[in-house]
Amino acid sequence: MIQRLCIIGVGLIGGSLAMALHRAGYCESVIGASRREEHLKQAVDLGVIDGYDLDLGAAVEGADMVVLAVPLGAMPGVCAAIKGYLADDAVLTDVGSAKASVVQAVREGFGELPASFVPGHPIAGTEKSGVEAAFPELYQGRRVILTPLEHTSEQARHRVRAMWETAGAIVEEMSVEHHDEVLAATSHLPHMLAFGLVDSLARLREHDEIFRYAAGGFRDFTRIASSDPVMWRDICLANRDAILSMMQRYRDDLAEIEKAIRDGDGDQLLEIFQRAKDARDRFCH
Amino acid sequence: MIQRLCIIGVGLIGGSLAMALHRAGYCESVIGASRREEHLKQAVDLGVIDGYDLDLGAAVEGADMVVLAVPLGAMPGVCAAIKGYLADDAVLTDVGSAKASVVQAVREGFGELPASFVPGHPIAGTEKSGVEAAFPELYQGRRVILTPLEHTSEQARHRVRAMWETAGAIVEEMSVEHHDEVLAATSHLPHMLAFGLVDSLARLREHDEIFRYAAGGFRDFTRIASSDPVMWRDICLANRDAILSMMQRYRDDLAEIEKAIRDGDGDQLLEIFQRAKDARDRFCH
Repeated sequence: MIQRLCIIGVGLIGGSLAMALHRAGYCESVIGASRREEHLKQAVDLGVIDGYDLDLGAAVEGADMVVLAVPLGAMPGVCAAIKGYLADDAVLTDVGSAKASVVQAVREGFGELPASFVPGHPIAGTEKSGVEAAFPELYQGRRVILTPLEHTSEQARHRVRAMWETAGAIVEEMSVEHHDEVLAATSHLPHMLAFGLVDSLARLREHDEIFRYAAGGFRDFTRIASSDPVMWRDICLANRDAILSMMQRYRDDLAEIEKAIRDGDGDQLLEIFQRAKDARDRFCH
Repeated sequence: MIQRLCIIGVGLIGGSLAMALHRAGYCESVIGASRREEHLKQAVDLGVIDGYDLDLGAAVEGADMVVLAVPLGAMPGVCAAIKGYLADDAVLTDVGSAKASVVQAVREGFGELPASFVPGHPIAGTEKSGVEAAFPELYQGRRVILTPLEHTSEQARHRVRAMWETAGAIVEEMSVEHHDEVLAATSHLPHMLAFGLVDSLARLREHDEIFRYAAGGFRDFTRIASSDPVMWRDICLANRDAILSMMQRYRDDLAEIEKAIRDGDGDQLLEIFQRAKDARDRFCH
């Protein structure tokens, strides 16, 4: 059980967590905090949070669970703002898509890594953003990765795990570095490819016509290019090395396909496409 | 109305057309033809076709509408096999994703371009293939592009248009060259990117784990990588120049994103992502 849950950044991710925990009767009260009062008012109107405070320090005071759900670029400022206001028994966690950068933001903001800090990342979301897109089933059956640190307390880990399990998620643990590599491959790289494709086509002279003939496959393929640009700018800056390394590898693989097309090498194309189809069918059935 | 419709290649595309026309009561009979008897038997069992012939010449004899729905690589052989068997009043069309190569196959197979030949391409499909994936609503509201040639007869054009409209499609016309460029951008390039991504990840040592953490966005993004490898090999070989030119352009655009990430240039990343999101939201709402 959580007495007072404080969610900093009440958008799709933070809002959906609040709704899921509310519905499970797991929180006595949920307090939202952010810089934008109109978003917080909307979250109250939608019944996502019980109240809010524009002062981050005041918002976390008295909370026994604090969830940082702001874009990665806002983490350092938020950490600096809440330092000194966290209760002794409060657990601190976050939902950032790149863990090393959040760990660094917490270390710099607090001057040390609190034992009560448990980095976390729910592998869930849609291409939509904002609290109006939040829904309580978002985490049902989805994975949440925790990347506890050397000094993270057992109790904090258990409390964060219990919170996500209550929201319906399957909780797993791995190291910060491994998380950032895995996510670069499965999420950050695909987003770069989709943003890049849509931008590439949008810059063609005849782009209106081009998009007119796009079929269902294109729609699916580019859905993630509708994601929040600020969030993705921050992810790129926060997980730079792992993303660049995956992009480099991808570029080489794409060059291989290009060469096979140029050479008219049907056997090699068939081999690549078959291997890809087999992998896709095996893992995403 | 069609008296005797002959569909060569009864898979997702040919089968769905047959089902739609059947349902509309637009054909007296639908005859299937292909090299694989087990597929044809299955199509008869599913009620998709009324009968079949393994001899392509015999299958087209007496048909007033012949639809070539085989992979692009099989077009030359099929054209050579049906030459001399087409009735004088028969209309010939196809569903290939790259038009120049089909026009060439017909010209070579027949020794000339018959006035009754209307190249066509339904912009529809799913990642599934085979007649068991066919369904009569596939073309409902979808675009079909016809690329009539200089000597194509008005009557043939009208009959092919009427057939697709009966199946629920919106029929448009453009030149062969323009079709092949537009499709390279909206369909062929995205397929290369998706096949390339899944193959790239499948070749990572820890690929089992990588795919385990793939979320909904990844699933959508890579759906087209489950498409038929033979069909896509043929498309790559058939529309080589247009695909290579789009891949080249895309590679340059991706290199720009990579450079912005490497330079930590958040403003440029935000600009690219915002432009892509705006285009996606505008065209795929």
